Amino acid sequence: MSLSLYDISIPVYLTALNNLLALLDKAKAHADGEGADFAHWLDARLAADMHPLTRQIQIVSDAAKGGAARLAGLEPPAMPDEEITFDQLRDRLVRTIAFIETIRPEQVDGRETATIELKFPGRTMSFTGRDFLLNFSLPNFYFHLVTAYGLLRHKGAPIGKMDFLAGAQMRAA
Amino acid sequence: MSLSLYDISIPVYLTALNNLLALLDKAKAHADGEGADFAHWLDARLAADMHPLTRQIQIVSDAAKGGAARLAGLEPPAMPDEEITFDQLRDRLVRTIAFIETIRPEQVDGRETATIELKFPGRTMSFTGRDFLLNFSLPNFYFHLVTAYGLLRHKGAPIGKMDFLAGAQMRAA
Repeated sequence: MSLSLYDISIPVYLTALNNLLALLDKAKAHADGEGADFAHWLDARLAADMHPLTRQIQIVSDAAKGGAARLAGLEPPAMPDEEITFDQLRDRLVRTIAFIETIRPEQVDGRETATIELKFPGRTMSFTGRDFLLNFSLPNFYFHLVTAYGLLRHKGAPIGKMDFLAGAQMRAA
Repeated sequence: MSLSLYDISIPVYLTALNNLLALLDKAKAHADGEGADFAHWLDARLAADMHPLTRQIQIVSDAAKGGAARLAGLEPPAMPDEEITFDQLRDRLVRTIAFIETIRPEQVDGRETATIELKFPGRTMSFTGRDFLLNFSLPNFYFHLVTAYGLLRHKGAPIGKMDFLAGAQMRAA
């Protein structure tokens, strides 16, 4: 049995995004129950020169929709980084999930060796589809996702690793 | 072109572990340069009930050698969690990398649907090889790896996301 590029990408983004929604909901409910202002949580950073939680969530969205779209040979839908509130960030994740759910296996499979270019100021990174996913997109996605988790824990959210790995539990017997 | 279970696992662990070694070396050199006691860095936590950096690094090692070994149908080599110093933790990562480098494609490929069981106190999780990697092992590996990164940043290490994604840069044109 072989693996397809779709199998190792789209469901992975979707499981993790749904887990992040559940983590945020738990954190928000906890903050509300304590009478805390969640805006302070959204401004939290692990270091002064790191992005705050709001931006981490926006980048999680970008990494997932950008990764999924590029693997499928599509332009990712633009989502201006204008979210300020919990509800706005939650809605962005819901829209990110909805976009990724539209991607079908036949759009991704077969693009393992297709060229995917990422343009940054002053340089272009060029990958095969497979290397883009494994060496850039997924590590970058998890980088911001786990940083968001760490910020929620740092602020006192009653969440744990099993929330982060929830998709694994659903799939395990 | 299809993907193999080896391709999407063993090189991913190895790239990330080598990146972690480089991140730790940079952080240690910085702490030394500032006259800081790195033991305090190794004790750092993002929340009082989270594991400190030392334990995060040990679990990164466990996740990688355990994941790679189970995919290959092997027992992971035991590494008692006795490391206290930077040099000991660094050596553990080097030994973890050396073990994973011994795993050959033919030991992993074909095990996409093999049953992999994880025994925890009071429960057993049962996966296919593919689901074990994608839904449990890699998310768990990145969970502790990015938490270790966050702790190093939290303590002031002069590292950035491009250090975390270094393998991607090497592979991109």
